[in-house]
Amino acid sequence: MSQAKAAQKALALAPGRERNRALLAMADLLVEETEAVMAENRRDLEAAGQEGLSGPLLKRLELTPKKLSELAEGLRQVARLPDPLGRGEGRRQLDNGLKIEVVHVPLGVIGLIFESRPGVVVEAAALTVKSGNAVILRGGHEAQRSNQALVQLWRRALGSAGLPEDAVQLVPSTDRQYVEGMMHLRGLDLLIPRGGAGLINRVVHEATVPVIETGVGNCHLYVHRAADLNMAAHILRDGKVGNPAVCNALETLLVDRAIKEQFLPLAWETLREDGVVFHGDEETRALLSDAIPATEKDWAEEYLSLDLAVKIVDGLEEALAHIARYGSGHSEAVVTNDYAVGQAFLDSVDAAAVYWNASTRFTDGFQFGLGAEVGISTQKLHARGPMGLEALTTVKTIAYGQGQTRDL
Amino acid sequence: MSQAKAAQKALALAPGRERNRALLAMADLLVEETEAVMAENRRDLEAAGQEGLSGPLLKRLELTPKKLSELAEGLRQVARLPDPLGRGEGRRQLDNGLKIEVVHVPLGVIGLIFESRPGVVVEAAALTVKSGNAVILRGGHEAQRSNQALVQLWRRALGSAGLPEDAVQLVPSTDRQYVEGMMHLRGLDLLIPRGGAGLINRVVHEATVPVIETGVGNCHLYVHRAADLNMAAHILRDGKVGNPAVCNALETLLVDRAIKEQFLPLAWETLREDGVVFHGDEETRALLSDAIPATEKDWAEEYLSLDLAVKIVDGLEEALAHIARYGSGHSEAVVTNDYAVGQAFLDSVDAAAVYWNASTRFTDGFQFGLGAEVGISTQKLHARGPMGLEALTTVKTIAYGQGQTRDL
Repeated sequence: MSQAKAAQKALALAPGRERNRALLAMADLLVEETEAVMAENRRDLEAAGQEGLSGPLLKRLELTPKKLSELAEGLRQVARLPDPLGRGEGRRQLDNGLKIEVVHVPLGVIGLIFESRPGVVVEAAALTVKSGNAVILRGGHEAQRSNQALVQLWRRALGSAGLPEDAVQLVPSTDRQYVEGMMHLRGLDLLIPRGGAGLINRVVHEATVPVIETGVGNCHLYVHRAADLNMAAHILRDGKVGNPAVCNALETLLVDRAIKEQFLPLAWETLREDGVVFHGDEETRALLSDAIPATEKDWAEEYLSLDLAVKIVDGLEEALAHIARYGSGHSEAVVTNDYAVGQAFLDSVDAAAVYWNASTRFTDGFQFGLGAEVGISTQKLHARGPMGLEALTTVKTIAYGQGQTRDL
Repeated sequence: MSQAKAAQKALALAPGRERNRALLAMADLLVEETEAVMAENRRDLEAAGQEGLSGPLLKRLELTPKKLSELAEGLRQVARLPDPLGRGEGRRQLDNGLKIEVVHVPLGVIGLIFESRPGVVVEAAALTVKSGNAVILRGGHEAQRSNQALVQLWRRALGSAGLPEDAVQLVPSTDRQYVEGMMHLRGLDLLIPRGGAGLINRVVHEATVPVIETGVGNCHLYVHRAADLNMAAHILRDGKVGNPAVCNALETLLVDRAIKEQFLPLAWETLREDGVVFHGDEETRALLSDAIPATEKDWAEEYLSLDLAVKIVDGLEEALAHIARYGSGHSEAVVTNDYAVGQAFLDSVDAAAVYWNASTRFTDGFQFGLGAEVGISTQKLHARGPMGLEALTTVKTIAYGQGQTRDL
C-alpha cells in the first residue's frame, strides 16, 4: 500500500503527456509481446479446461491476437481523450478578492476486484493511469497467469515513460484473503467490485473502505400501446438475445393490455428461434401457450440467460410502478410514439439510463464515448452508469489570496 | 418513509418555480411567525438551562428575531440560485443517431442528523426542497421544540406552494433509536451525520445506507521562510481565534526553521491576549517559554478550543509530510511569497480546500457562494468540501432513439 501511495503521488504530479506516453507504450507492448501474453493465457486456458470450465466462460478467459490488438487500439483512444486532471470548473472571485476554483484531482489508490476477463487489466488500468490513480487489481484465479503477464507489461510501459511501476499492481495470489484484505485496506480511496451479485453484496455490506456498487441489471422494456410494434420486437430481441449474460440485457417485458393480442405473438415469433423461454403472467399465458408461469421471483430476478419475464400492464402508470418496485436502477426502456408517454417515462423512471425507442444495451462506457469503463455504477452517489475517467477523480478547491481573513 | 418517497417524487417533477415558491413562502413565514417560533425556542432554552447547558451551547441553541430574519434572507438567496435539476451536461449523438445526455436529477430521500442549532432546519431544507429531495431531520434533543416549530412552518410553506408537506419531516422524538433507525432505513438515498466525531464515526462504520462523512478538521497553517510574517500572524489569529469550535479552524502551526526566531515571538504576541495555549515541540519551547510540551497526540487532535500545536519544520517537504500524515483532508494553508513553493503546496496537499496566503476559515458553503450548505464533506467520493445544491443531485442518462439496437 505504501508503494502504491508513493507511486500515485508521482503519477498525479506527472503531466498528462507522460501519463499518455505510458498508455501508448503499453499499446505497443501488447502488439510486440502478443506471443508471450498468449503463452500465459494458454496455460490459464488449459488449467481452466481441466477444472471443467464451460464454453462461454472459456471464451471470456481467452485472449487472441485480434483481442490484444483491439485492446491496444483502445489504449490509443484513451490516450487521445482530454486529460481529466487539472481541469477547473471556472474561477470565482469573492468580494474580498480571494480567488477560488474547484479543480479535478485523482482519487488516489483504487482497488478493483473483477472476474475472469483478463482484458480488464488493460482497460481499467488505462483509465487509472490516465487519471493519475494507482490501482490494485484482484482478478479471477483462472486468469491469474494472463493477468500477471499483462501487469508486467504495464510495469514496463510505466517505466519506459519515466513513471513509477507500482502504479499498477496485481495481488500476489487470488486467495480469498486478498478480497477480505482489500475490503479493509487502510488508505484505499475506492474499491470497485465487479462480478456476481454475491461478491458485490458482500463487498458493499462488509467493506470499511469506500465502495462503488456495480452491475446488477434487472432491466425492463415497456411496450406502450402507441409503439411501432416491429421496432419494439427488434429492440426486445437485441436486449434479450444480443448478449444475455451482461448487466444491460433485458430481463422483463411489460406490454400494454390494449396491444397484447398483436404484440405477444410477434414477440414470440421474433424470439423463439433464439431459444428464449417466456415466463408469463396469466394473461400472457392465455395468448402464448408455450410460456411457463411467472412467479413473484421472476419479476425480481436478473436471469442473465435466455429467459424473459412477461407481464401485461394497464398502461404507463402500472409500468412505472412495476419498474419502481422491481428495477435495479440500471437501464430501462420504453417504445412508444406518444410524446407525453415517452417524456413521462424519461422523467419518472429512476435509473442510471433511460431509453426511448432504443435498446438498453447501449449502457456501456465505450458506447457512451468514455473510451473504456471501470464498471457500471448502479448507485446514485459519486458516479451513476458507466464509469470512465471523470468517475476516477475527485475535486479540491484551491484559493489564491493576499492575506484574506474572515472574522478579523 | 413511504410518505417521504411519494412526496419526493412529486417534488422532483414540480417545476423550479414551484419549489422556489415554497422557499419564499417559508421566508415570509419566518418573519410573520417570529414570535411563535421564539416562544418554542424559549421553552428549549429554559429546559437546556435547567439541564446545565453552558454559554456557547446555549448561544447555538438560541433563536433571535435577527437570526430568523437572516435565515429568511438566506432562503430568498437560495431561491434566486439556478435550478440544479434538469440541467444537462451537453447532448451527444452517437454514430447510429442515438441522442444521449447526462442530466441532473434529485438523489431522493435524504436523512440529516445534526446538533443543537435549529437554524439547520431552515438552511438544510432550503437546499433539499430546491433540489427536489425529501428530507428526514433528526436534531439534538435540546432543540426539539424549536425544530418542530420550524418544520411546521415548512409544511405550511410547502402546502401553500401546492407541494407535498411530507417533503420535510422531523423524527417524532430524539430518542437514540431514531439514529439507529436512520442508519438502516431501507430506501434512504443518503444519510449525512453532522456533529461530534463519535457520532460521525459510528454512522460511517455502522450505517447500511449511503453516508457522506462530514466535518472533522485538523487544519494546518504552514509559514514558509519567504512569508510576509505579519500576514501569516494575521491569518493564524483568524484561523485560531475567529471561531475555534468550528471544523475550518486552525489546529496546528508549522514554521520554517529559518524564520523561527522572527515568527514564533510574533505569533505569541499576536495570540496571547486571546488566551491561546501553545503546545510546542522542543525547538518551539526553546524560544517560547510559555509553550507547554506537544506530544504525538497534539499533532493528531482537533482541539476545537483555544489550543494550538506548534512544530518547527525544515521546509516544504517536511511540512507536506506532516500534513499528509496528520491532516484530516479538510482545509490547509500556506503563507509564502515564493511562487514555486506556493504552487507545490496547492498541487501536493490532498485536502478539500487548499489556501495560499489566506485563512482556512473560508471553507464554508456561504463563503463559497453555494447559498447554504448541508455539511462539509471530508471524503473524496461524490462531494468534497461544502455541500450545496449540486451535491444533493445525481445524474441519469436519457436517450432518444429511432429504434437503435446494438448487436443486431
